[in-house]
Amino acid sequence: MTKSYIVGLDFGSESARGVLIDTATGAQVGSHIHAYRSGIMTRILRDGTPLPPNFALQDADDYVEAAFEILSRLGRGRLVEGIGIGFTASSPLPALSDGTPLSRLYPHEPNAYVKLWKHNAQSYADAINARGGPFLDNFGGRVSGEWLLAKAAQIATEAPQTWAATERFIEGGDWLVWQLTGREARGLGFAAYKAQYSASGYPAGLVDGLEERLSTPLPVGSVAGPLSQEWRSRTGIQGSAIVAVAVIDSHVVLPAIGATASGCFVGALGTSAAYLYLDAEPASLPAGIEGMAFDGSMRNLWCYEAGQASFGDTLGWFVRTFPRGADMAESFGTYNGEAAELAPAAGRLVALDWWGGNRVPFADGNLAGLLVGMTRETTAAEIYLALMESLCFGTRSVLDLFTGSGLVPDRVLMTSGLARANPLLIQIMADILRQPIEVPQIENATAVGAAIHGAVAGGVVADYAEGAARFGARAMTHTVPRPAHADAYGDAYRIYRELGGQSGLRESMHALRRLRAAQHG
Amino acid sequence: MTKSYIVGLDFGSESARGVLIDTATGAQVGSHIHAYRSGIMTRILRDGTPLPPNFALQDADDYVEAAFEILSRLGRGRLVEGIGIGFTASSPLPALSDGTPLSRLYPHEPNAYVKLWKHNAQSYADAINARGGPFLDNFGGRVSGEWLLAKAAQIATEAPQTWAATERFIEGGDWLVWQLTGREARGLGFAAYKAQYSASGYPAGLVDGLEERLSTPLPVGSVAGPLSQEWRSRTGIQGSAIVAVAVIDSHVVLPAIGATASGCFVGALGTSAAYLYLDAEPASLPAGIEGMAFDGSMRNLWCYEAGQASFGDTLGWFVRTFPRGADMAESFGTYNGEAAELAPAAGRLVALDWWGGNRVPFADGNLAGLLVGMTRETTAAEIYLALMESLCFGTRSVLDLFTGSGLVPDRVLMTSGLARANPLLIQIMADILRQPIEVPQIENATAVGAAIHGAVAGGVVADYAEGAARFGARAMTHTVPRPAHADAYGDAYRIYRELGGQSGLRESMHALRRLRAAQHG
Repeated sequence: MTKSYIVGLDFGSESARGVLIDTATGAQVGSHIHAYRSGIMTRILRDGTPLPPNFALQDADDYVEAAFEILSRLGRGRLVEGIGIGFTASSPLPALSDGTPLSRLYPHEPNAYVKLWKHNAQSYADAINARGGPFLDNFGGRVSGEWLLAKAAQIATEAPQTWAATERFIEGGDWLVWQLTGREARGLGFAAYKAQYSASGYPAGLVDGLEERLSTPLPVGSVAGPLSQEWRSRTGIQGSAIVAVAVIDSHVVLPAIGATASGCFVGALGTSAAYLYLDAEPASLPAGIEGMAFDGSMRNLWCYEAGQASFGDTLGWFVRTFPRGADMAESFGTYNGEAAELAPAAGRLVALDWWGGNRVPFADGNLAGLLVGMTRETTAAEIYLALMESLCFGTRSVLDLFTGSGLVPDRVLMTSGLARANPLLIQIMADILRQPIEVPQIENATAVGAAIHGAVAGGVVADYAEGAARFGARAMTHTVPRPAHADAYGDAYRIYRELGGQSGLRESMHALRRLRAAQHG
Repeated sequence: MTKSYIVGLDFGSESARGVLIDTATGAQVGSHIHAYRSGIMTRILRDGTPLPPNFALQDADDYVEAAFEILSRLGRGRLVEGIGIGFTASSPLPALSDGTPLSRLYPHEPNAYVKLWKHNAQSYADAINARGGPFLDNFGGRVSGEWLLAKAAQIATEAPQTWAATERFIEGGDWLVWQLTGREARGLGFAAYKAQYSASGYPAGLVDGLEERLSTPLPVGSVAGPLSQEWRSRTGIQGSAIVAVAVIDSHVVLPAIGATASGCFVGALGTSAAYLYLDAEPASLPAGIEGMAFDGSMRNLWCYEAGQASFGDTLGWFVRTFPRGADMAESFGTYNGEAAELAPAAGRLVALDWWGGNRVPFADGNLAGLLVGMTRETTAAEIYLALMESLCFGTRSVLDLFTGSGLVPDRVLMTSGLARANPLLIQIMADILRQPIEVPQIENATAVGAAIHGAVAGGVVADYAEGAARFGARAMTHTVPRPAHADAYGDAYRIYRELGGQSGLRESMHALRRLRAAQHG
């Protein structure tokens, strides 16, 4: 019997990563990473054209190059049954109706390129939010300057000729699927979370001509089409090679870590933290939830999205600012070793984890970090511990928002390199959440999740649950709360919430942001 | 013509320091330091007797030994016209009517020893404060557990037999003057600031038999008496050798730095900061002022006292906790060098300088330090700068309390090693106070101040102004505000005050103090 495979592609901010999985054994038998040729363009275009502030662009052709390198290395001569793609979002680009990206036609025009997820068109979002509309109900009442609607408005306003030439306005992940299959097939996740698509369609009348440049999206796991003949001949891939519609990278991971059912609360603990919650029913949620969509993350389920603006990077900031070793790893080791010996809130310190602003519950990027309780006896390790605790208090604030709306998780999963590398952080989080936490032990989780989407679309498995069982994480680390610690953290968490709830304190943070530092004179 | 001299003695917490000054030239021609044999006893007595918490004792005989060593080294064979003494306070001891300290009779009884200034009998102070009385009006409505009344109450309660044997209860400085002259002559500063003596006498009825163990104090600069025949023969000192009544060490410095007139605001910037303000008129001051007295610091003037619980030690804490060099000096150099390049509030950070609690305006030792405004771009130098700024904001809070009560300084002087060693700190303070600051350039300032008291008592000079001119600091460093910086700090100071004024924030600090860290288990 000929071996067959599925392929998962994870298109991140700097590079793309692919995995090759044996459908019989479920083992990852190959992987490859390819960095984008032009990377992220924030100051100048490739040709030297200077870019305005808050621009972050990519070249769509870099995605094609990366896909070719990965697929040909992993797939040449192999029987591939399914291909899935996870992709950053919202990272849309303007294109012709044959798929040609406008950046090929107008290489000197910044607005012709992919606007990467962190490209921010805030003023256009502000204008949309000021107009308001029922499409904001599922998004905490506001769209972000990082989302598709604001980015479309920016092109239409700042580069009207480019907008006039735009026949399709499409997420990078959907555009790549189009390139691979020859068919435009949009993913519902991108459309719902980033373009506010719902059962009643896209919001109308916000940007001239936008709706006609979009198309009706398909649920996750849908077949976009088989890999095109041209790509088969270029990459040497054999077999049905069904390509699934693309999925937001932070969502595509769910089946790889076994989070496929209602009641799963999943945290991706990266530089920032993203939380997803799956439920069969729609709920009406308070501000702080950034989005909710049906069929956009997991089939036949609602998925709710929330986050912390700063997570691992807050700890990274501390260790970089106050090093205790020859390099970051050694400093982290020193601080973690000392913090592990400390009791909860050992320094009687509490931090507000707002180094990157606050999303839950205030959705206010101009808030800032706070540390309170220092005495002349406070140690560096106590401060480090307080920062770890504050990050977990932030997680609990998100979880409390869900449970307060009647969405009570059955399982709590935390994924990422940080979650696997820092068991102390996970232990403290379990204590603070008063919940057992599962950490999936799996390499290349996002790419594996994408491959499972390919397996669903390709009919290799009947559903995501089977995909997770056959191709997902084989082992979970279970961490249970320590009762005495959990009790102690109850008191500290109350102080954290009381501090965060003080409007005067938040006003002081705003006043600090408005401070203009005087020039030396 | 035979040369003549004055001698100043500065009895600190760990050691005594003496200076010898030529009355003709005003030059310091000798100095000597002698450490106390038993130092500060906080855990056990010399004989091994364990001490209760918050005890900090000294042996009065150590003062005699130090005085003998210093006076004989500096004075032997010399014509000495005046001797002055600065002394820590409140550091009282129980004695017989012939001056014998009870610790010689009861060496195993902790309550028979000198209770050093930082020995804290807080519960007895609390009881006195709960009873209340008009004598509290000049002391922000409360006495401290570090002051004489509480310490007397502690002996009477905890060691009634020792109290019964006590014939005189006397400050260490007054007791030393008694030893040197054979006459009990109390200093008005000790009595007023530490035993709440006023024109109507000592407060009555607080501790059984206390008033009869005290005596009517004398204004600063009064003659206690000439050095006794016994001390002359032991030390070899010649001349009139008039001994002045003793003065609190932080007050005795005033003439040495030229602060002898109404309108002087003087800060002694040590590990904590003490501020003195001189005025011809009494004023009614809000809470936060720790004391006021007439004739207790400078002749014919009122002196008001306030402070910051933590000053230089907050910077020391930061540099010790987050070192940036081989030793403290190198770390301070690194941080100061980087901070000097920064604009005001460069990190858009503000700190509350409450690492040791707050005295002005809340008189609340359970408050704690705060730092707000951190982002992932915040640097260590920006935090160090914010701490320096917060210390100066604290100084301004004290100054504002005075000016708000109509006490507007003509001159602002900052003294101490820190003030001389850290010109950046003084520049920032000038910017924040919007006041020129004078830093006296003088060695052994406290001992020189004591010597000037001796000169006044001995008739070497007509008054303190003449004493200051002849024997005090010859040079002042003048630092003027930078207008642009002063404007920028106006905004930051408003944020500092708004933060400090938030009762919810202070409640959170109290809640943190109540946190009991759970045991590992």
